[in-house]
Parts: sequence; C-alpha cells; structure tokens
Amino acid sequence: MTNQVSALNLADILDEHRRRWPNNVAAVDEDGAVRLTYPAFAARVDRLAGALIGAGLGSGDRILWLGQNSFRILELILAAAKLGAIVSPANWRQSPDELDFIVADAAPKLTVWQEKEVGERVRGAQSFRKTGLWLRHDADVSGASEYERFLTAAEPAGELDFVDPALPLVMIYTAAFGGSPNGALITHNAIIGQSLVYGPARQITADYRYLNVGPMFHVATLMETLATFVMGGANVFVPRNDPEEICRIVDAEGINGAFVIGPAMEQLAEANKDRRYNLKTLRALKGSDAWNDMVTVDDSPWGQKPFGFGQTETLGYATYSLLQGAGAMGRSSPVVLARILDEAGSEMPDGEVGEIAVRGQTVSPGYWNRPELNVQRQGQGWHRTTDLGRREADGSISFIGPKGQLIKSAAENIYPAEVEACIRRHPAVKDVGVIGVPDPVWVQHVKAVVVLKPEATATEADIVEHCRAHIASYKKPRIVVFALTIPRAGFAIDYAKLNADHGGGGYPGGG
Amino acid sequence: MTNQVSALNLADILDEHRRRWPNNVAAVDEDGAVRLTYPAFAARVDRLAGALIGAGLGSGDRILWLGQNSFRILELILAAAKLGAIVSPANWRQSPDELDFIVADAAPKLTVWQEKEVGERVRGAQSFRKTGLWLRHDADVSGASEYERFLTAAEPAGELDFVDPALPLVMIYTAAFGGSPNGALITHNAIIGQSLVYGPARQITADYRYLNVGPMFHVATLMETLATFVMGGANVFVPRNDPEEICRIVDAEGINGAFVIGPAMEQLAEANKDRRYNLKTLRALKGSDAWNDMVTVDDSPWGQKPFGFGQTETLGYATYSLLQGAGAMGRSSPVVLARILDEAGSEMPDGEVGEIAVRGQTVSPGYWNRPELNVQRQGQGWHRTTDLGRREADGSISFIGPKGQLIKSAAENIYPAEVEACIRRHPAVKDVGVIGVPDPVWVQHVKAVVVLKPEATATEADIVEHCRAHIASYKKPRIVVFALTIPRAGFAIDYAKLNADHGGGGYPGGG
Repeated sequence: MTNQVSALNLADILDEHRRRWPNNVAAVDEDGAVRLTYPAFAARVDRLAGALIGAGLGSGDRILWLGQNSFRILELILAAAKLGAIVSPANWRQSPDELDFIVADAAPKLTVWQEKEVGERVRGAQSFRKTGLWLRHDADVSGASEYERFLTAAEPAGELDFVDPALPLVMIYTAAFGGSPNGALITHNAIIGQSLVYGPARQITADYRYLNVGPMFHVATLMETLATFVMGGANVFVPRNDPEEICRIVDAEGINGAFVIGPAMEQLAEANKDRRYNLKTLRALKGSDAWNDMVTVDDSPWGQKPFGFGQTETLGYATYSLLQGAGAMGRSSPVVLARILDEAGSEMPDGEVGEIAVRGQTVSPGYWNRPELNVQRQGQGWHRTTDLGRREADGSISFIGPKGQLIKSAAENIYPAEVEACIRRHPAVKDVGVIGVPDPVWVQHVKAVVVLKPEATATEADIVEHCRAHIASYKKPRIVVFALTIPRAGFAIDYAKLNADHGGGGYPGGG
Repeated sequence: MTNQVSALNLADILDEHRRRWPNNVAAVDEDGAVRLTYPAFAARVDRLAGALIGAGLGSGDRILWLGQNSFRILELILAAAKLGAIVSPANWRQSPDELDFIVADAAPKLTVWQEKEVGERVRGAQSFRKTGLWLRHDADVSGASEYERFLTAAEPAGELDFVDPALPLVMIYTAAFGGSPNGALITHNAIIGQSLVYGPARQITADYRYLNVGPMFHVATLMETLATFVMGGANVFVPRNDPEEICRIVDAEGINGAFVIGPAMEQLAEANKDRRYNLKTLRALKGSDAWNDMVTVDDSPWGQKPFGFGQTETLGYATYSLLQGAGAMGRSSPVVLARILDEAGSEMPDGEVGEIAVRGQTVSPGYWNRPELNVQRQGQGWHRTTDLGRREADGSISFIGPKGQLIKSAAENIYPAEVEACIRRHPAVKDVGVIGVPDPVWVQHVKAVVVLKPEATATEADIVEHCRAHIASYKKPRIVVFALTIPRAGFAIDYAKLNADHGGGGYPGGG
C-alpha cells in the first residue's frame, strides 16, 4: 500500500477534474440527451458509489456490463474506483451459453444489462437474474430505468477507505483461443500510466472529443476512452456502428477521434458523399482521396505510423512505433519493459526469435480466477504474451506472430510462426501453415503446407532453400506439401485440423 | 507492495534502456572524457550496486553527495534504485557547520565528496570521515579516485529483491526557512510520473540532450535531469556555471536544453558575441535580440509560458501553466490533486484564498527523520505547501504568496501574504509587509508597513480604501505606517524584525 499523500487512483482523477475542468464536458450519450460536465458526472458517480455500497458491494467485487456502449460503463468504472471494485464490460454479441460462462466465472454482485438489441440473448441465459443484483439500464416502456432508480435513490458516498492504485479496476475477457475466455485484470496504475503515454502520443488534451464507436469491451477503444477521461476530455458514446449516424455525431459534437480504420473509413466517406456533414474536426488516418478531403488527415507522428505491439493484458500498446527503429513495432513504452525469452525464461540474443514477455505499469497483474494460468503466464515475474518477437540490434522490436504450438526437433525448439513468416516472404507463396510430424529419431520434424499464388510456381526444394537462406538450418522444413487452402478459425490457423489433415503430432507436452 | 509484473521502478527503466536504446548516450562528463552509452552506463550501475551491497548498504540507507554536478550523482541514484536506498545531493556551497547538520541528520552509510573547489569546506566539517564510509570521487594527485576504485573492484550485483516504486529514492534538503533544512523524500513513482508529464510538455524525447548546468541539489535542474533519463535522452554534466564553457559545450554536444534563465541568457550572449560557438540546437526562452538570434527560441507551448506552481516536495511543477486558465499557474498536473484549504483542512470556495495542499504521484511521502513535521504538513492526508493560492472559477489556480504567520482578528484568520498582494497592486506602493498587532478586544488587528515608490504619494486612508475595494473588509489594515524599507532575509520578509520594529505580536499559537 502506497502512502496516501503520494498515491493517485482513477477516482482521485475524477475528484480533481470536477475542480480542474469544471466547465468541460465529461460524457455525451443518447444523441445529446445526456450531456454531463465533470462536476455533474462526478456527482452521479458519488451517488452511484453510495448505491453500490448500499447494495453490499466493496473491494474486489465484480460488476458485469451486458450492453452496448454507454456513458454508464465509464460511470460504473469510476464508482467502482472509489470502492476498489472491478467492472467488466462484456461482449454483448455473445450467445446465451457464452454469457452464462462469463456470469459463472466473474460471479458478479451486480450485472447491468440492456434490453434493446441485447435483451433477448441476456434473458435467454440460464443465469439471468439468478446471481446477485441485476439492473436493466435502458428505459422500459414506462420510460423508467432500474439502473437510474438504483442510482438516484441513493445518497452520495461519504468518505471511503483509500483504494490502492495497484488494485485491479477493469476486467476484459480475452478471445477464447483454444478454450474459454479469461478475464484480464487491469489496474488503476495501468490506466493512468497508459493514458500518460498514449495521451501525448495521440495529442489527447482536455479539448479532445472522442467518439466511442468501437466496442468498449475491446482495448482498442477502451484505452482511448480512458486516456480521454484522464486528460479531461469529452467521451461521446454511440451504441451502434452506423455510418450515417457516426457522420452526424462527428459533425454535431465536433469529434476529434474515433476508432475508424480500414473499410470503415470508406463506409463513412460513402455515407457522406453528398458532404452533408462536416467531418473536418476528425483526425483520421489516410484513406481514399474523398476521405482525405473530408477529414483532417492526422499529421501527428502517431497518425503517420499508427502501430504498436500490444494486447488486452497490456491495456493496448506495450510498444510504440513512434519510438522508431528497424523493428516495425518500435520500442517498448516508457512504462513497460520487454524481453524476448526462450521457453525456460532466459533472454534470447538480439536478432533471435523468442516469446515477447513484458512487465511494467500497464501490464495486467493476472487473470481473474485462473491461478494455474497465472503461474504459467506470469510465474517467472514476467507476463508471457504468447506472441513471438525479435529484438533488433538498435533495440526496437519486430513482431513475428502468435507463438502457436512448439515443435521439438531433437533438443531444438521451433516456433511454427517463425518458419511461416519466412516462407510467407517467398514471392510465390500466398499462405502457409507449419506443423510438427512425429519422428522416431528427432522427436518431430518440420512440415510446411504451402498455398501458392495463382499462376505462381515453386518446388519443394525452392521453399526449403529459401528457408535455409533466411533462418537457422534446423528450422527449415524437412517436407513441403502444396495445398489449396490452409484451414482457419477466424484469422488464426486451425492447427488441430492442419495436424489432422497432414499427419502432425508428437508435440512436446502432448497434442 | 505492488505485484511485480505490474510494477516499474527507476532501476527497471535503466535495465530497459540498455536494451531499448543500446546506441544512445546516457551521460557525458569531464568535457567529453566520460561518454557512456546506456549499456555502458548500466554496466557501471550494476557494478556500483554490487559495491554498495558489499559495503553493507541496503533498503532505506542514505547516500550523501557533497560535490558539484557529476554523472556520478545519476549513477548513484540508479544504483540506489536497485537497493531501495536513498541519495541526497546536498548543497556543496554550505558552510562546514551546515554540512555537519546534514551529515548528522541524514546519517549516511556512504558519503561521496569532492576535493576540487569543495574539499576545504568538506574537510573542515567535524563529521569528515567519521560517520560511515567516505569516498572522494575526483582524482587525487596520483590520478586515482577512491570512488572509482570502490566501483571497479566490485562484482556486478546479481538478482536483487524487488524495490517498490512507492519507496523514496532521492532526498533533497529544502531551504532552511525559519530553522533547519528538512530532507524532502522523493519516490520512484514521483520521478516516473513527473517525467511522463514534464517530458512531453518540454518535448523531451530520446534525442534530447540536456546540459546539467544548474545545481542538481535543486529540483529546477533535477526534474529535467531525471525526465531526460526516463525518456532515454543524454545528460551532459558541467561542474561550474561559466558562460564561455557553457557555450563551448552547447556547441560541442549539440545541447537542446539547459536551465538558463534571466540574466544568465545575456551572459551567454555576451560570452558568444563573436559567434564563435553555434548555439542553435539550444531551445531557449526569449531574451535580447542577440540571444534570440543565437539560439532556437522555444516555440513549444512550454517555451511560451514556462510557469507552474511547485516545490521540492512535488519534484517541481504540481501545476502546469500549459493547462491554461484565468489563474497564471494553470491547472494541477494530471498526476496531482490540488486543494485550497483553510487552517482546519476544509476546502475554500472558488475565488477565496487558502493554503495550497496537494496529493498525488509526484508528492513527497514526507521528510526524512521529521515525524512531528510530517504530522503537521501531511497529517490530514494532504501535503500542505505553506503557500497561499486561489482556485479560479474556471478551475485554474492563482499563486498568492508564502503563507507566513497567520493573523487572528476575532474569529477570522488573515494571511499577511493576501493583504500584501492586494496592497502591492496599489500604483504608489513599492513594497509592503503586513503584521498582526495585539488587540485587547479582537486578539490582533492588521497593520501594514508600506514603502512608497520615489515621488509617489498615498495616505493611510488611500491604502485602507484600496483594500476595502479588493478584499474582504475584515482583512483590511486598521493601521498603515510608511517606512523606507521592509527588512528581508534573502527574498523573504524578515517578519521577526518587522514585528519587533512595528509592535507585532499576539499571533495564534504564540510568537
């Protein structure tokens, strides 16, 4: 526990914003029907904290959000910050069964849910209204909201025990790669540290107006929501991702930032092709000429190169491409340490591939309710990201790919992603998956399944030779076969199927 | 104690810099004879930490520096960071008696001292070589240095216990207003938090080259030394403040920043009037035309308005004028909370004067070895700065003046500084001091001692009327007398003498 005079948690920041930025807008929602200055927002948060205490919530208790984007997510996070409680904005697109898993896992004392667009799924869950308190936040046919009644009926919380900023405040369930989702815990310190780095990088100040259009259960949006809050800016919320509606709100609210990338930019450009809306306040990435002409193409270093390596467990970027070097991911954030480790936890030399491990202010102290996974991922004092990277000679970091299933050839460990990255650079190759095949002498040997580009040709020997030229010889495939597709589950290679189709197996640790 | 995976201390940052910025220069000293990249600097720090452990130093132990600016101050701070020890760079201009006080108070296990220019005073102290280990850092006639021998003879420290960043790392003795100096403790968190705010404000990046020309025992220099380190930039050290030498080093090292303000700028312009040296890399404040033409006049917002309220106990700025508002001091730093408090610790309404109190990441957890003072200054969970301020309606803060001795008129508390600030705005007034005079009915009444400008005239009634128009009526002086000077001790009014000369007394709490 840090000395209180020297400490700062997220609730403290709101308490100061009400004084420091009394005239700034904190939150806008429901198409402008909700518009709260920092003092008004802080007053609601005080009352909500009082209501939570009245409902028996305290330090370490979980609050689950089952709804679309709303100012109430930020409000709940700030009220939880006063109590030391934890808020999890869950993916509202999940099935009733998936929701049941989350409810059972998080065991929330309070679940706030939404009827509109989400209610059918929520009400279809076995757990509905069975565990702890459930409050519907959107208005019912009478115009009343359970959540609002809960909040407004309470007295503001009085003086509370000090909450250590090293405690978790937010929990984000990560994608369920190879099993169930896990709730990554995010601390007050992580939010403050990331905001102090990301804020200046993205030029977020107290004048900044951020449109929460991406899902707030994903760090790509949430890290900017929170940085906007920490800097005293305005968060504007929109439940749905509708191009015309977004254009209208950008114009009406003078939005400066939003998670709008790739095809979404062109959808907005199309929706606004008659130039009905003025989008010039929006600092955006470069797109089509029509788009570039419509918005302010971000000329900050951030806008020029919006990269970084990160994940939920680091509340977004752990490296910043702004800190330029030979490696495209740039260098570790000022508040993060990065190491490239082998399986045993020893540091790899520069230029060699290993697992990226991190430590520092923005790093999760672990997963909720996962003691074994926490030992596996963090037992050596570092958080292992399960992603592969390489430290370049200039200190910057290259991302190789997800670690995947380790291949064992005699005493050597081989990461499929490293071999795949090498083969993918061959000009004839469109896609590739690499597996280990049981070997009576060497434990396993490497097999590459290659998809060639249309009209392109390459032989097995070409691919092997290409690998020999670019990676250590023991990593090159012993066998190369050609196929029409690589099986995938979403973006990721479906290794279970690839192994089954091509004789893979014998992996260290089984499988 | 924070979870180690989520924690970050100053030694961690060095450990990452050696990987993140392997080619960057960390420190330059002795006119370029010392030039250390981050890996080389980190290797020295490892060895120094080993030597400190070998000498019996550990968590909480103090290391005293009695010398001019040197890269060894930063080196000691970083080695101490690995151990949890505390480094105090003391004012080398102090008398032997003052040095004895500091040595007795800090009770250092290690004192590093310097012969050149400082040795006579240090050797003249009673405590010389009597308490703990003393090491001379500059070379003796044989060219050997006790400090270097100590460092190079040791093995690098191995794996050490984790050091909580909430612990103090640096101790700065504050000026001895009304008594003895007090060692303000500065934590790892304070250094990291201030660097993340001050760094971007001052545009300090890994390319930044900072010249340590101001004294490193003062936060005005030290906060920038440390921010330059945290951002991976280069610290260049110079022991003396010689204009020609500074010009030469700015040119030779491509210096970007230095604590050069006011008359010092014109001294440099004069020393370089033949334009022998190229000072264009130096981002500086505006001065004379010759100066502006010689350097790069800082066009950052920081350069335009280089203000903020701060003190040693907040490692420099606690408010940033960059966060502009009606109050000249701007708004509280993103990592600091500020309150305007009355004597009892209640918050004053906006627009009313009270004592500025602060809390947050950059705030000192207290003074070394001063339990009573710590209760007095921090007992209510806030650090009381002993300075008066006012929160404006827009949330920004105005600085009024040092709190001084409280005057009691009936039930009302009156701060001399507030009345003085009001009277000083009268066009005829050159200087003013305000005291309390014993009053049989009202405890005390207010008396103003005024020095008029040459040729200016004003009557007692004019001054009283001026006060009535600008501050609450009970604060206006009952008596105004005119004098030729106000007695001062340095910059501060000598209230003991002012009271003695003008019948002051009867203050609450005695005096």
